[in-house]
Amino acid sequence: MSLIQGLVSEFKRLPGVGEKTAQRFVHSLLKKSNREAMKLADQIREVVERVHPCNICGSFTELEECAICTNPNRDVSLICVVEEAHEVEAIERTSGYSGLYHVLGGRLSPLDGIGPQELNLASLFQRVKRSISSVREVVIATNSTVEGEATAIYLEAVIRPLGPKVTRLARGIPVGGDLDYVDASTIVEALAGRTEM
Amino acid sequence: MSLIQGLVSEFKRLPGVGEKTAQRFVHSLLKKSNREAMKLADQIREVVERVHPCNICGSFTELEECAICTNPNRDVSLICVVEEAHEVEAIERTSGYSGLYHVLGGRLSPLDGIGPQELNLASLFQRVKRSISSVREVVIATNSTVEGEATAIYLEAVIRPLGPKVTRLARGIPVGGDLDYVDASTIVEALAGRTEM
Repeated sequence: MSLIQGLVSEFKRLPGVGEKTAQRFVHSLLKKSNREAMKLADQIREVVERVHPCNICGSFTELEECAICTNPNRDVSLICVVEEAHEVEAIERTSGYSGLYHVLGGRLSPLDGIGPQELNLASLFQRVKRSISSVREVVIATNSTVEGEATAIYLEAVIRPLGPKVTRLARGIPVGGDLDYVDASTIVEALAGRTEM
Repeated sequence: MSLIQGLVSEFKRLPGVGEKTAQRFVHSLLKKSNREAMKLADQIREVVERVHPCNICGSFTELEECAICTNPNRDVSLICVVEEAHEVEAIERTSGYSGLYHVLGGRLSPLDGIGPQELNLASLFQRVKRSISSVREVVIATNSTVEGEATAIYLEAVIRPLGPKVTRLARGIPVGGDLDYVDASTIVEALAGRTEM
């Protein structure tokens, strides 16, 4: 296999990248100056070497503890539990949440051999237990999939006995959503979760 | 800017990659083992360091001269001129061409400051001149855009006086194409280039 073919296969391991896209990537790198093209390799190397999970919440950071966990202005009585680190960014972009996070690094999925031990759970339970007086609420923001739901139910069962309130993100009609285009199970959830006006 | 943000911006320089896609790339790398993720950086480094234009045709190779130029089974009397190196692969995939190639590395585009000096032209003319007896035909396969056409016309004007026949790829209805969905200028070209059955 030629070097170019090797790099094409390596790019194809990235999510959503097929043969054609990978080839375009390689050729766009080859069209750049060596210095420009090498920057991508250097940045990957640096991120892989220096970025690791935050000691507290498990999201990615270059420091021991991430900028959110160490921010004195965040509400330490709230912990939002997400499956993956990039979901922290999705919530942060909204500027609508001021609490802390906890990243599970996946979801319970027995069929794939992912049980509670495979997830970043022990440290979540310790965070709740250690600061039993201060953690007032755990917001579960796992995805609305079968595995995400199973994970939410498991978390609720384990965390509620420890003291804090356990909530989860509301399910319902997306903002701007048209009833005609919303699937039946979402409408059922929206009806079940209807709120007084 | 954090390391992660830096890598996201670097990925965004690849063609067709926006913020979200770049973030997915970074997070997919961070989910891999260090060794796995580093492979991409290593392969990029190796390609950038070791792949360069073929001394003869200008397409990318790890050797002094590429595998096509040095293949004794190729028809040396035919040279197909393309704009970019990846177009060589597009033609090679068809297995319908057995001649050699020449990569211009772009197209004439005075508005972008790209004149004949900016393209890999001198070596093309030398190839034709040096082997004046053996190069029977130059197939111009520049793209069917305004700049591609201008480049084709320029090449024809310079190469024909040197001796070889100058041809260009047929323009017409794509195979499987429906007349209803083919644009007017393509139909005009297809009519003008009609062949006897």
